[in-house]
Amino acid sequence: MLLFRNDYSFGAHPKVLEALCATNLEGNIGYGGDVYSDRAKDRIRQLCQCPDAMVEFLIGGTQTNVTACAFLTKPWEAVISPATGHLNGHEVGAFEATGHKIIPVEVGPDGKLTPEMLPAVLEWHKDPHLTRPALVYISNATENGTVYTKAELTALSDFCRANDLLLFVDGARLAAALTSDANDLTLPEFARLVDAFYLGGTKNGTLFGEALVITRPELTHDFFRMKKRMGAVMEKGWLQGVQFEAILKDNLYFDMARHANVLAGRLQEGVKALGLPLMTESCTNQIFPIVKNELRPRLEQVCAFEDWCPFDAEHTVIRFVTCFHTTQEDVDALLSELKKLL
Amino acid sequence: MLLFRNDYSFGAHPKVLEALCATNLEGNIGYGGDVYSDRAKDRIRQLCQCPDAMVEFLIGGTQTNVTACAFLTKPWEAVISPATGHLNGHEVGAFEATGHKIIPVEVGPDGKLTPEMLPAVLEWHKDPHLTRPALVYISNATENGTVYTKAELTALSDFCRANDLLLFVDGARLAAALTSDANDLTLPEFARLVDAFYLGGTKNGTLFGEALVITRPELTHDFFRMKKRMGAVMEKGWLQGVQFEAILKDNLYFDMARHANVLAGRLQEGVKALGLPLMTESCTNQIFPIVKNELRPRLEQVCAFEDWCPFDAEHTVIRFVTCFHTTQEDVDALLSELKKLL
Amino acid sequence: MLLFRNDYSFGAHPKVLEALCATNLEGNIGYGGDVYSDRAKDRIRQLCQCPDAMVEFLIGGTQTNVTACAFLTKPWEAVISPATGHLNGHEVGAFEATGHKIIPVEVGPDGKLTPEMLPAVLEWHKDPHLTRPALVYISNATENGTVYTKAELTALSDFCRANDLLLFVDGARLAAALTSDANDLTLPEFARLVDAFYLGGTKNGTLFGEALVITRPELTHDFFRMKKRMGAVMEKGWLQGVQFEAILKDNLYFDMARHANVLAGRLQEGVKALGLPLMTESCTNQIFPIVKNELRPRLEQVCAFEDWCPFDAEHTVIRFVTCFHTTQEDVDALLSELKKLL
Amino acid sequence: MLLFRNDYSFGAHPKVLEALCATNLEGNIGYGGDVYSDRAKDRIRQLCQCPDAMVEFLIGGTQTNVTACAFLTKPWEAVISPATGHLNGHEVGAFEATGHKIIPVEVGPDGKLTPEMLPAVLEWHKDPHLTRPALVYISNATENGTVYTKAELTALSDFCRANDLLLFVDGARLAAALTSDANDLTLPEFARLVDAFYLGGTKNGTLFGEALVITRPELTHDFFRMKKRMGAVMEKGWLQGVQFEAILKDNLYFDMARHANVLAGRLQEGVKALGLPLMTESCTNQIFPIVKNELRPRLEQVCAFEDWCPFDAEHTVIRFVTCFHTTQEDVDALLSELKKLL
Repeated sequence: MLLFRNDYSFGAHPKVLEALCATNLEGNIGYGGDVYSDRAKDRIRQLCQCPDAMVEFLIGGTQTNVTACAFLTKPWEAVISPATGHLNGHEVGAFEATGHKIIPVEVGPDGKLTPEMLPAVLEWHKDPHLTRPALVYISNATENGTVYTKAELTALSDFCRANDLLLFVDGARLAAALTSDANDLTLPEFARLVDAFYLGGTKNGTLFGEALVITRPELTHDFFRMKKRMGAVMEKGWLQGVQFEAILKDNLYFDMARHANVLAGRLQEGVKALGLPLMTESCTNQIFPIVKNELRPRLEQVCAFEDWCPFDAEHTVIRFVTCFHTTQEDVDALLSELKKLL
Repeated sequence: MLLFRNDYSFGAHPKVLEALCATNLEGNIGYGGDVYSDRAKDRIRQLCQCPDAMVEFLIGGTQTNVTACAFLTKPWEAVISPATGHLNGHEVGAFEATGHKIIPVEVGPDGKLTPEMLPAVLEWHKDPHLTRPALVYISNATENGTVYTKAELTALSDFCRANDLLLFVDGARLAAALTSDANDLTLPEFARLVDAFYLGGTKNGTLFGEALVITRPELTHDFFRMKKRMGAVMEKGWLQGVQFEAILKDNLYFDMARHANVLAGRLQEGVKALGLPLMTESCTNQIFPIVKNELRPRLEQVCAFEDWCPFDAEHTVIRFVTCFHTTQEDVDALLSELKKLL
Repeated sequence: MLLFRNDYSFGAHPKVLEALCATNLEGNIGYGGDVYSDRAKDRIRQLCQCPDAMVEFLIGGTQTNVTACAFLTKPWEAVISPATGHLNGHEVGAFEATGHKIIPVEVGPDGKLTPEMLPAVLEWHKDPHLTRPALVYISNATENGTVYTKAELTALSDFCRANDLLLFVDGARLAAALTSDANDLTLPEFARLVDAFYLGGTKNGTLFGEALVITRPELTHDFFRMKKRMGAVMEKGWLQGVQFEAILKDNLYFDMARHANVLAGRLQEGVKALGLPLMTESCTNQIFPIVKNELRPRLEQVCAFEDWCPFDAEHTVIRFVTCFHTTQEDVDALLSELKKLL
Repeated sequence: MLLFRNDYSFGAHPKVLEALCATNLEGNIGYGGDVYSDRAKDRIRQLCQCPDAMVEFLIGGTQTNVTACAFLTKPWEAVISPATGHLNGHEVGAFEATGHKIIPVEVGPDGKLTPEMLPAVLEWHKDPHLTRPALVYISNATENGTVYTKAELTALSDFCRANDLLLFVDGARLAAALTSDANDLTLPEFARLVDAFYLGGTKNGTLFGEALVITRPELTHDFFRMKKRMGAVMEKGWLQGVQFEAILKDNLYFDMARHANVLAGRLQEGVKALGLPLMTESCTNQIFPIVKNELRPRLEQVCAFEDWCPFDAEHTVIRFVTCFHTTQEDVDALLSELKKLL
């Protein structure tokens, strides 16, 4: 069975597991007060060139999105999100569970939010009988596999700063974005343009763990209490520090992501060569072919994938995802199976 | 440095880590839909002799307490907890964050709730201008290291069932309780007396993970959605299944706990022999000596421990905790250091 | 100044005020335990032909929507609402503040939700990683002044019952709906088709107060506690009973609404005769002319109205509303002013 | 039947009702944007000598407590309240419903919180694994009918300001407090010592309505959105303005309260002369005799009162309350009935 269902089907990169084994019975202080966490946080601040940023480890993506967005907004304030954003569409109302409204904005097939989409939303919500939009949530890479260019993110950032909106980036796949061929942002440039974001671990080499970065220290007071209140503090918090230290060493984090992107790119080219249309042209590690519904059962025999959404009455958009553990052989095998099926 | 600060200072039991390494790059379905999780859940149902129980893995103790108690009560209902209960005292209002009130009940130095403490609470809350008490939260072992006997738990269970109260047990240290010399309950007997509880992993051999058991299937509808809403669903959910399968094999789970209890018992005897008084006589893996405040700084030089609470102006209750990785040598060394200090 | 801004610009119908004056210093038991409340509740049950329904008085529309919808759903469940529904668009996230997600559904210019809009929503949300849609929220009359016909409400009700969805109707303007020329539903028929709704008082003759009806007694347990928890219990609760008893006497409630509808109908005819287009053809007491933006400042000199929404770059949809206190003279005067301005 | 159950058994003072009748069909702008509200707010600022204070009208006491305390604290922050405080004991968890924890502090029979009770609470909560106490909630008059003296309130205020705690006063019975013989505070002095409080209307002459005052303008940003989110914005908001303008004219507000206090004082003296003990010596309009349980059924024949709490197995603390409408004849009649019963 070829595994292209997602980028969290495998455990940790071997170097991460090695680090966990090496430190397993050392004895460490709990709740993230350990040296591994300290060093990993320092390394992230250094990589982002944000010496004053707060870095805190959380466990998973939904938890990080929800905790950060609820922390950064007041109860009567809302978050603007692409309608397709993970926060809006895929988290069982976990953000609303904190008492906040999401204002969904329709976006195009590239999944990107642009400044042009926002003035009407702000104008409408000037009315004090409506919630106040206070934060813009986007993902990079987006849910649709695309990335924000430097020009696009700068424009959005400028708009947000001119309009008293915080800009938060869901970085579950930030490494994929920053190593994409379509990317022209460095991590420090990226960090300067946003107020908060996270470096995703779960989808890029760790067993679990996301590194939340709030770049503006004046916004970070008492974050630990909020994290604890959200059930997001791990007792054995050094596990996150150890894992992040391991993936941030020798560029492993970005090498893994680039590897996945390259293989996804080849898969996408192969899929197109087979004549399958795409929902959108991806430049990261998720690709979205459109297949006839009748093909799906046979495809399920040979590979794991995900139904993304209906395309029309007879077609479905499916998703293939690559990760650090995917090989060229896996890609070739999938393309060969697809060829047989078509 | 001798580590007696808590039972989550070390990583996983070597057999757990072995299992994680062995399965690391297998490829598994996410979110707990894997075979390891299925097998571990089956094993727990079997050990509890509750074939119809729901078993779900969560990540940490606070998260499990909060998710379970909020799931089992309606928004206008409250939870009765010993004032010293972890849910009330140590979780930054994480339960109140779900919109529920906790009704704290003062308990004695053994930390145990008895049926005698409840009628006045129920009588007072008959008034519909007050919240309705709907669930009783206790811990076993308690925060104070004591355990509920069969007679005690039966009496509490009977009272709850006669008064339309659910009974939930925080089992972060359930293995310690059930392997204590003071215990006369089997796991199936225990499970029959309560409506929901969890088998703690984090404090007894896993990297993380708690196995929530709801023994009454009619109470479990849609729990997964609640778990997701609380940010408690792991993407790589098989990690919990693999770890629980490993600790539940060959009685390892209970052997680890008994080992920790035995060493704590010897430490407690030794401490008493040195003339130190105890806050309460513990029968599990946490012990609570009372020391002069002036002793503390010197004690910190030789061992890690925790301040539990002030005793009086000149004394502090401290806590020593043992775990699967504590050795007789550690205990002897600590006693020898204490002797020097006193 | 001609007052067409809304249907809550005036106090109470004189008969309501008379009843309040007559009972003012009688002395009554608080919190709704009084005989006026009892009689008014009985009268509502009788009018609805729902002898077992729960009737409870709340204070305002947002509060009633939020309290009822949160009471009728579990925390991880969502409410489906027309995107234009008051619950979604005009309540500052008051419903999300209770921890629930709203799933907005795009509707046409008539503002009505139809069963055809729902299967795709339900299909999408079968995924347990998404919230469960549990209740359908609509308004009757709608935000756009239209009403549900018997066939339309029956179809929606049938769909809901076949799909385990509750149907809740925001009845802030229910009297306007049921007395509209476009209406073919009796109150008992209406009540049979829905699970919960309210008879709005604030917009039809009282100082404040909404009468929530939950038609299925098995859904009503402990509602008072929920109401209290939401800050919705009035200390002098008899004020609501007294007012509802007054408006429900001698058909006053429906007479007032019909009066407002008739005058709005004439105003709408007059507006059309003047050549102004309408956003939608209304059949109740709110009408929605489209005017040139440049007209607005001059219109503000002669009458109070509300901007509803932008129509295009040069036009705005405005809203005129009539109520029990509007007269034929007011309508004639407004039309005459409009004629001068055009 | 003699009505001593509470101070909200009667409607409004006749002058208030007169003002409501006089303005009933005037036509006013909604949501509190009217001139009556503006004038009443100005008058309150003037009376408090707080020209920059925010004044907002809410509907009832629970709603005002909950909205204000949730507005003034961050989600992970807690409120310190006397265990007997209304917020803690009598509001069905309405405050916890906003996601906040209450830290109850045991107080003496006078119901007053003193600075001496707070350092231990603050010390304990320095731990970031616990919630942060951010606001102190007290009532004046207290639940027990006592009042804070200038020295007491100054000491509490000083402590709060030195320890970064806001001080909020539930003023449901503030008029009773400030007109008590035991009071030595003027309203401006009182306002200077606290950060937020409300002037209760419901219990002193209006049909409903509480005037929330936040004395520090920097704390008030976006309060209207919070109020709307809590369902606390009245559509016919001028009703609150009209009523408060009426009671604040010619000192009526304080005259009513003093009247009630004087009669309660005479009732208390009479009760003591009859040999009945008191739970606490009250100096406002609520008094708390202790009666034999066997007396209660006969007492219920002649007067309305409330059971306050059990005193011992054979005695109950009951509560008599006076209000603007109570007369000397009522007091004499009650004392004469009590004499017959004893």
